[in-house]
Amino acid sequence: MKRRTFIKNSSLTALSVTAFGIVDSRSEGFTLNQKLRVNEDRIENRIFELAKYGRDENGRGYRVAYSKGDIEGRAWFMQLMENAGLEVSIDSGGNILGKRKGKNPSLKTIAFGSHIDMVPDGGDYDGTLGSLVALEVIEVLNENKIVTDHPLEIIIFSNEEGGTFGSKALVGKLTTDNLKLMSQSGLTIAEGIKAISGDTHNLTSCIRNKEEFLAFVELHIEQGGILDKENIRVGVVEGIVGIDEWDVTVEGFANHAGTTPMNLRKDAMLSAAKLIIACNEVISSHKGKQVGTVGKISAQPGAYNVVPGKAVFGLEIRDLSQDKIRTLFQEIEKRAAAIAAEDGTTITFNQILNMSPALSNKAIQDKIVQSAKELGLTYKNMQSGAGHDSQQMATIAPMGMIFVPSVGGISHSPKEFTKAADIANGANVLLQTIMALDRE
Amino acid sequence: MKRRTFIKNSSLTALSVTAFGIVDSRSEGFTLNQKLRVNEDRIENRIFELAKYGRDENGRGYRVAYSKGDIEGRAWFMQLMENAGLEVSIDSGGNILGKRKGKNPSLKTIAFGSHIDMVPDGGDYDGTLGSLVALEVIEVLNENKIVTDHPLEIIIFSNEEGGTFGSKALVGKLTTDNLKLMSQSGLTIAEGIKAISGDTHNLTSCIRNKEEFLAFVELHIEQGGILDKENIRVGVVEGIVGIDEWDVTVEGFANHAGTTPMNLRKDAMLSAAKLIIACNEVISSHKGKQVGTVGKISAQPGAYNVVPGKAVFGLEIRDLSQDKIRTLFQEIEKRAAAIAAEDGTTITFNQILNMSPALSNKAIQDKIVQSAKELGLTYKNMQSGAGHDSQQMATIAPMGMIFVPSVGGISHSPKEFTKAADIANGANVLLQTIMALDRE
Repeated sequence: MKRRTFIKNSSLTALSVTAFGIVDSRSEGFTLNQKLRVNEDRIENRIFELAKYGRDENGRGYRVAYSKGDIEGRAWFMQLMENAGLEVSIDSGGNILGKRKGKNPSLKTIAFGSHIDMVPDGGDYDGTLGSLVALEVIEVLNENKIVTDHPLEIIIFSNEEGGTFGSKALVGKLTTDNLKLMSQSGLTIAEGIKAISGDTHNLTSCIRNKEEFLAFVELHIEQGGILDKENIRVGVVEGIVGIDEWDVTVEGFANHAGTTPMNLRKDAMLSAAKLIIACNEVISSHKGKQVGTVGKISAQPGAYNVVPGKAVFGLEIRDLSQDKIRTLFQEIEKRAAAIAAEDGTTITFNQILNMSPALSNKAIQDKIVQSAKELGLTYKNMQSGAGHDSQQMATIAPMGMIFVPSVGGISHSPKEFTKAADIANGANVLLQTIMALDRE
Repeated sequence: MKRRTFIKNSSLTALSVTAFGIVDSRSEGFTLNQKLRVNEDRIENRIFELAKYGRDENGRGYRVAYSKGDIEGRAWFMQLMENAGLEVSIDSGGNILGKRKGKNPSLKTIAFGSHIDMVPDGGDYDGTLGSLVALEVIEVLNENKIVTDHPLEIIIFSNEEGGTFGSKALVGKLTTDNLKLMSQSGLTIAEGIKAISGDTHNLTSCIRNKEEFLAFVELHIEQGGILDKENIRVGVVEGIVGIDEWDVTVEGFANHAGTTPMNLRKDAMLSAAKLIIACNEVISSHKGKQVGTVGKISAQPGAYNVVPGKAVFGLEIRDLSQDKIRTLFQEIEKRAAAIAAEDGTTITFNQILNMSPALSNKAIQDKIVQSAKELGLTYKNMQSGAGHDSQQMATIAPMGMIFVPSVGGISHSPKEFTKAADIANGANVLLQTIMALDRE
């Protein structure tokens, strides 16, 4: 197995330890349990252990959902869960559930977890980290002989990377169309769910009740590079952005590039270029964290010597507020109308995706902030620009997410890396957040 | 055979006839031969006759070079040339030559002609018209029992549409690389030349001498729509533009479209859009007839949800002056450097085509102008934005081109159409220009 060099950031660890000594029992209404600390080495060793499962013929990471590596990795993970005394099962959607009884069975469940499937040639931290850190919380409770008041549950969702299909199943949003889709593994989603011991004949049985959970909390690497760049240890996720996508079609008139004078042209590419800049101006001119992207384009007929009669490009806007996305889009529509009028072209927008934002629960955010503060860790409120299982879970449970830095913001790449000290810091925040939720 | 409605523009014809009556023997040093007039109906009927040769399985025009239709059309044309008393041959490059002796064999040859191959689903006038009008000149001389002082020669070039390969062969510019190229017919250029009775083993034998021609004159439809739009009967071509083409590569940094803040992006597509507009501004801001086009583009990796790390587009600039093309390109390079610096991207230009302009001979232009004036026809000096066999011929002979209007400027389309009156006007200009050249 190819393993990257392990970088132990001793100064950061020292800082955390010092902080632990200072902050105990300092704040009002929130007491840091000084004894409870995660085992940094155990988590990191398990990252490297799990990375052994799933390799393609060239030795690259290939634990894509439903593949041999995914199935073997899940078996390894379930064994660890059983070793930790959890009651382990696979629901009909293929999600791995690990339950731990609380003192009071009438209380709602505190759930946490992530996923262990990966994109082809992906990294060892996306999803994996949140899954192993969830297990670490259980290990620490076991070692300290702590039984929480609330029942606890680890959820390892199936096929997150393909489109959060496991969490969709769990919240009742998996469609029959989804089941027919071809997954990266070469199996359809339906075939894949069966391959990992799910049961597509009883997909309603895995749907969880809205009253069942006190919270769902997910720890994940931050894929935008903001924490790493700003040297901040913990991201407190305010929500997962909504995503709207459009195909934008500009129509002009195709003509001979040699014989058509500049002033007689209706050049679709030129209008498209103006609109691409206008999109960027509209998105960038508003305050906030919204992003907008033109990621694909074609000019038609697409020859050096033909004035393009048509240009089609993809426009995507993401923000935590659906209203803001709508406002931005309306501004872009106005700019498009002006460009079309000026150039004698026509511009049409065809929406192809409308994914609603998922807001984090404010009380859970507060507990994450408080945990970070008590642990002496720098933190930052931020949004998640990427989709996660938490987005689905937010539809049935109060949701919270904890981000830890990913070096260079690199993700979906073999270069994905999070320092062990940052893993431990984030894991301790998750642990303390769960404990704080239990004290409610 | 599908034939379009024949529109006889009687007012235009009447105007021309009136003009003929007025202008005879009016000007100094240039005497219009009032008896010599082309036969409008004969030319147009032959257009429709030739259009019968070459159809694809769906009945669309398909007289592409080296195809069955091309071979049959050429045979039909050669028969007409023989009927007109020409000494007909096919040179080793597959060009059809039709020679008519002059009174003085020591004088240089006056050559004229065009091509009869077409693009797939093309029209019946591009090339065909110039070829049949050239033959009409001979018919009129025969009918009027005129023998010119200079030898005359009709040249029907092979495979103009594929890349002026016949005229390249005739001027000695056909390369061995050219011979290996696959043509539209499914044959390589070498195989195609053999299929039309050329001789690829003796390609030097078709190369003509620089001292051989007094002039080469080609009549062609004007493919830019300028004559039609401005209601002008004759275009006096000042030259065929040079064409420079580049692949322009913009490199930024590919990133997640959801997690990468707007101010941390190096969006290659955005820089490309700015540069496309800059190209248009540079080209349009200079006086003159230069044109510049971005006709193809791609963004990479090319997904809605990835900030493009790379964008590649095609840039083409055409003008009669190579210096002007160079100046425009240097301005574009400066704009590119400024955009790259502003956006943190890199922009590189890779030239893939550098075709020199071909200037028309000034004395021939004057004779075309004088002929149009004497015939009472409106005319306009203009450049050819499209390539023609005349571009190659200009390298070995004084060259001139006569344009006639194409309705709507439409070309390379079944809708290509030139009114019979405009055909006759242009043909009479060609006839009188040949006669004027002979009087030198």
